[in-house]
Amino acid sequence: MGTKTLLIAAVAFTFALPISALAKDHPLPSWKNSDSRAAIITFVETVTDTSSENYVPPADRIATFDNDGTLWTEHPVYTQLAYVLDRVKTLAPKNPEWKSKQPFKAVLEGDMKAVGAAGEKGLVELMMATHAGMSTVEFELIISDWFQTARHPRFKRPYTELTYKPMVELLEYLRENEFITYIVSGGGVEFMRPMTMDTYGIPPQQVIGSSIKTEYKVVNGAPTLIRLPEINFNNDKGGKPVAINQFIGKRPIASFGNSGGDQQMLEWTGAGDGARLMMLVFHDDAEREYAYGPANGQADTHFGRFPQSLVEQADKQGWHIISMKNDWATIFTPVAD
Amino acid sequence: MGTKTLLIAAVAFTFALPISALAKDHPLPSWKNSDSRAAIITFVETVTDTSSENYVPPADRIATFDNDGTLWTEHPVYTQLAYVLDRVKTLAPKNPEWKSKQPFKAVLEGDMKAVGAAGEKGLVELMMATHAGMSTVEFELIISDWFQTARHPRFKRPYTELTYKPMVELLEYLRENEFITYIVSGGGVEFMRPMTMDTYGIPPQQVIGSSIKTEYKVVNGAPTLIRLPEINFNNDKGGKPVAINQFIGKRPIASFGNSGGDQQMLEWTGAGDGARLMMLVFHDDAEREYAYGPANGQADTHFGRFPQSLVEQADKQGWHIISMKNDWATIFTPVAD
Repeated sequence: MGTKTLLIAAVAFTFALPISALAKDHPLPSWKNSDSRAAIITFVETVTDTSSENYVPPADRIATFDNDGTLWTEHPVYTQLAYVLDRVKTLAPKNPEWKSKQPFKAVLEGDMKAVGAAGEKGLVELMMATHAGMSTVEFELIISDWFQTARHPRFKRPYTELTYKPMVELLEYLRENEFITYIVSGGGVEFMRPMTMDTYGIPPQQVIGSSIKTEYKVVNGAPTLIRLPEINFNNDKGGKPVAINQFIGKRPIASFGNSGGDQQMLEWTGAGDGARLMMLVFHDDAEREYAYGPANGQADTHFGRFPQSLVEQADKQGWHIISMKNDWATIFTPVAD
Repeated sequence: MGTKTLLIAAVAFTFALPISALAKDHPLPSWKNSDSRAAIITFVETVTDTSSENYVPPADRIATFDNDGTLWTEHPVYTQLAYVLDRVKTLAPKNPEWKSKQPFKAVLEGDMKAVGAAGEKGLVELMMATHAGMSTVEFELIISDWFQTARHPRFKRPYTELTYKPMVELLEYLRENEFITYIVSGGGVEFMRPMTMDTYGIPPQQVIGSSIKTEYKVVNGAPTLIRLPEINFNNDKGGKPVAINQFIGKRPIASFGNSGGDQQMLEWTGAGDGARLMMLVFHDDAEREYAYGPANGQADTHFGRFPQSLVEQADKQGWHIISMKNDWATIFTPVAD
């Protein structure tokens, strides 16, 4: 935290200024005074300036955000995978055959190497066993309960506290400037929705994600949506612009991601006319969070691949790379005393 | 128009009161003082009354509307089908083989009986020939152009003028009371979106409809979404609650339809807790619009079937039936002088 930020915080504390007034005078307080922060502020001031040729009316101020690795931590594994592993353990007593059946056996024995060896087919099996077969209402309860009790293995905090404070401030700053903020994630839409409003201020209808099929059925007189063990849509890579068009019907003017899965969303955003802002969060802070990916001189990863080619594309297309280490004064909201 | 409405209109005219003030004092001016109008006002006053046990916060005030036959005319054929027939004629010179190939031949010869005989398979062929093969951006232009020039065969007016004035007032009244209004239609989502904002005040992200698949491709360096000749989702009957859950992630508290295709949406809406409003527009006004369907003592129809069983279900579940003839003082906005 810089001296100026500290000073403002002290003043705000002393005089009990409302946070919103504070945010207006000094937006993005958890960002260092870096090029990234300047790029955001310049962009927002441009598109909201009615005298600018790049002015954009509020209805068209669409901003889309990837979730895993862009808004919250995605290591050591995606949060949704942590749910899958926990849920298999919870359901194991009712499924005694899992003790000798892969990939469930591997999960129950904590053998992550064997889980990985089961490949995509194994992962889909685990997903369906933990995401399908119940109603949408039941699933929402299961997920809400899980978020209450689950803790991140390294930080020992609820996953919903492992959101990036600078990015949550960015969401708020954009909304203060009449942007409509969307999540566009490869994660399951009904896995995210129970937490996005409280965590990001994003209501369910502004959350776009991967999904499984559901079926409408009247069960014992009660209208019900049953979650089926069948993939409906994979919201990754080229799927992101497809879903943006399907759900929003407008092209975003700003997009934020952190991996190869976000490349097409940023391309689609950048291909529109007028001012555009495309940014990629780069995980280069092993001390405060994680550093991963070959572009970072680190080993490759299954969670949030940031290939060297993406660095080159960002450079060519004027996409900003946000260094967690150099651009962010704070990563997570500090633990409350 | 009742005496009171006339009086208020005269006062407003004399003193040039802003329309919004007028609407607040006397909402839904194109509705007669019927049970339907009273049911709407009682419902809205209840869910917006913070002292009511049925109070609903604005974020949860979701209202969903079918489009064809609920918000605008669907006879003699769905507006989208009128586009299909026009478009086949426009494209015919570039497709000389259509002259001898069904169902195109039938369309070019204006033989609607032969078009009907081609069945669903034929209809899908016509749909794909007129809805796929171009980019989403090109399709939007084609549709916008068509709406500019096409005229309804009976009323000789643009289709966008054949919206029901009482329903447009209802949309506005709900939004004045902080509802979020959605279209949930069997019609194609990208067919509707070019007209919904100007016509209903509903932005693209609040339009849910049937869709074909699209594919993301970089064409000559330009990121493009290509419309493929393959059905993605049929947003009718049980598909409506499925799509409501997928796009909105919340259960509506009010739903409006006009046919058997809306039954499941109304069931899903009604199955939630607290105050609910479900209404069906009934086409019983042959003089000012149309009268159709067996429940109306008329011949059956392909466009907006309202079976007798739906009348019985409405009665049992407390759904209101809006009689166009008896409940609406005005149907369409009068032609401007």
